[in-house]
Amino acid sequence: MWEGRRLEELPTPAFTVDLGVATRNAQRMRERCQALGVALRPHMKTHKTLEGGRLMTGGSLRGIVVSTLAEARHFADGGFDDILYAYPLPFDKVADCASLAEKLEAFQVMVDSPQALEQLKGRPLLTGRPWKVWLKIDCDNGRAGVKPSDPAALQLAQAISKGVTELAGIYAHCGNSYGCQGVSEIQSVAQRTTEFTLKFMEQLREAGVPCPKSSIGSTPSCSHPVPTMGELSEVHPGNYIFYDVQQTLIGSCQPEDVAVRVWTRVIGHYPDRNQLLVDCGWTGLSLHSLGQLPTGFALVDGHPDLKLVGMTQEHGKIEPMTGELDFARFPLGSLLALIPYHACATAAMHPVFFVHSGGCVVETWRPVRGW
Amino acid sequence: MWEGRRLEELPTPAFTVDLGVATRNAQRMRERCQALGVALRPHMKTHKTLEGGRLMTGGSLRGIVVSTLAEARHFADGGFDDILYAYPLPFDKVADCASLAEKLEAFQVMVDSPQALEQLKGRPLLTGRPWKVWLKIDCDNGRAGVKPSDPAALQLAQAISKGVTELAGIYAHCGNSYGCQGVSEIQSVAQRTTEFTLKFMEQLREAGVPCPKSSIGSTPSCSHPVPTMGELSEVHPGNYIFYDVQQTLIGSCQPEDVAVRVWTRVIGHYPDRNQLLVDCGWTGLSLHSLGQLPTGFALVDGHPDLKLVGMTQEHGKIEPMTGELDFARFPLGSLLALIPYHACATAAMHPVFFVHSGGCVVETWRPVRGW
Repeated sequence: MWEGRRLEELPTPAFTVDLGVATRNAQRMRERCQALGVALRPHMKTHKTLEGGRLMTGGSLRGIVVSTLAEARHFADGGFDDILYAYPLPFDKVADCASLAEKLEAFQVMVDSPQALEQLKGRPLLTGRPWKVWLKIDCDNGRAGVKPSDPAALQLAQAISKGVTELAGIYAHCGNSYGCQGVSEIQSVAQRTTEFTLKFMEQLREAGVPCPKSSIGSTPSCSHPVPTMGELSEVHPGNYIFYDVQQTLIGSCQPEDVAVRVWTRVIGHYPDRNQLLVDCGWTGLSLHSLGQLPTGFALVDGHPDLKLVGMTQEHGKIEPMTGELDFARFPLGSLLALIPYHACATAAMHPVFFVHSGGCVVETWRPVRGW
Repeated sequence: MWEGRRLEELPTPAFTVDLGVATRNAQRMRERCQALGVALRPHMKTHKTLEGGRLMTGGSLRGIVVSTLAEARHFADGGFDDILYAYPLPFDKVADCASLAEKLEAFQVMVDSPQALEQLKGRPLLTGRPWKVWLKIDCDNGRAGVKPSDPAALQLAQAISKGVTELAGIYAHCGNSYGCQGVSEIQSVAQRTTEFTLKFMEQLREAGVPCPKSSIGSTPSCSHPVPTMGELSEVHPGNYIFYDVQQTLIGSCQPEDVAVRVWTRVIGHYPDRNQLLVDCGWTGLSLHSLGQLPTGFALVDGHPDLKLVGMTQEHGKIEPMTGELDFARFPLGSLLALIPYHACATAAMHPVFFVHSGGCVVETWRPVRGW
């Protein structure tokens, strides 16, 4: 219905993806991993679309990470396989995980506790094959995972590699790279996470615990990898297909690498308070910058002098950074493009992504939602 | 599929609605308006479901407000009528608005500028009937609307009541009531908004401009109305069907009036940092409290000693307000219920609402999304 139309014709707010930029982002990451000698297992959580998954896997539809079971089902139904549900196994989802593991060639789960492992041991797969289980380790990120220095980590790895489960890999998320500014800080986190992971792999070898794979990831660390990451078997970044203002500020990418926008229309002029209203509120953008950017909740593409100062459910308030707003430049009905602070969060607000090439819609992508 | 199941059986994160509480909230608002002598035109933006609309209209399916065209279409398709699209007319949606106005008995739009009115004048309805147009006035809220003291307001009202458009009503949103604490502050905003509106209605009468309706609204002001609101023709609150922590803090409701929860499961224990992880991140809750509650991003129902200190896409971090966490009280796989700070924002994250009575699911509601 929208294919062939210009972006200017879209109903707003509209989430748009520049296919050329997203394709380039995907390709650069593949090339970077290839040069490094490490497999790329892209994370689907940012876009949650089959088309985005196809782009990130270079058309192979093999070797992905998902953050929800809804994503796992969606990608499995869409012909994907070798899917890692990289989430501390939720006890209510064991039966559904088993169904996927019985149906796919390689559906893989993750645990970081003996209790979660017990859930898997108590539900052997009907195929007779072992569950493919990754062990999550926490390399100073402070979210999920066992600290690799904790003796419990090795014990858990040993327990996984017995009976109806097998140790498929070691997984670490360097979410702490999101606190970095600049390449050197990013690389120091990447280096440390890699060292912790490789050291633990060494421990496994010494203990005679077979473990074919090791993976670390985050968009900042995989955008600026360190050479030792080549000793891992794979990496699992996700956001890089779109990038966003946050990644630009961290230093993961350049502004021209950000593939996404939220197009919005001017719906009101309020000279008495030097503001205009646009038809994008937090349902179209999310609140993820918390309004803390110098330009407020987002960047207004091509208008560094504008600030998105406030948002309610369906309204955004824009005013000039300084001085008087020239309302004649922004007539009612005219368009502005917001560059999102956090693409994962903004994408999550949209039932459809308008994918364009040179400003002309070429595809629409529909993300999966829920859990 | 879920009807008849206990809340404890639901996959998490799960957005739940206590039907008894929501029904009581809806009924109380109807009774309050009846006692006040004012019609209730409930706003659908919080839940965006046909079932919620049925509850709020007392089964009449007549007289509602919507915030998006997607809601307008959804409710029209679901048998609703007398729908007010209370949003500054976006120029890209005029044709769709015309279709709805030609199809329904009373589809109504809103403007606050001569330019928006021109859009309607340029597209007369094929039925030959005039467009039903509300004029938005800004009574110190500072979002959309013409200030009623501005001569432009009367001029616009006069222009609306000519030709292919007719002035259906005057609309004011007292969003500034969200900055209040306690009944007295709420009522002072309600009083001021009502006075501005009634004074403008008087101006219209004096100028000989017919205007059958006047409406103000917000959940705080309509939860604690002032007697003069009885001189308006209607009010248009919305959030009250669910209420939330924010409304409790403003003073709109009591904690027991909050009908919604996000159920979540414990997925990790991390004694070294005195934290547990739950399977609800910002995709399940939104970031709307900005983490600024004493208890962080939400309240944990029945556990005032817990704080939701952090959220990423699919993870929430909980720790005790003080002291050591007793992990034995929260085994892996056990459930917690989060009370959302902003129900509109949390509801917007869920593709399905699990509606229960006494902890047993009786209905599932599916909200409309998009624009």
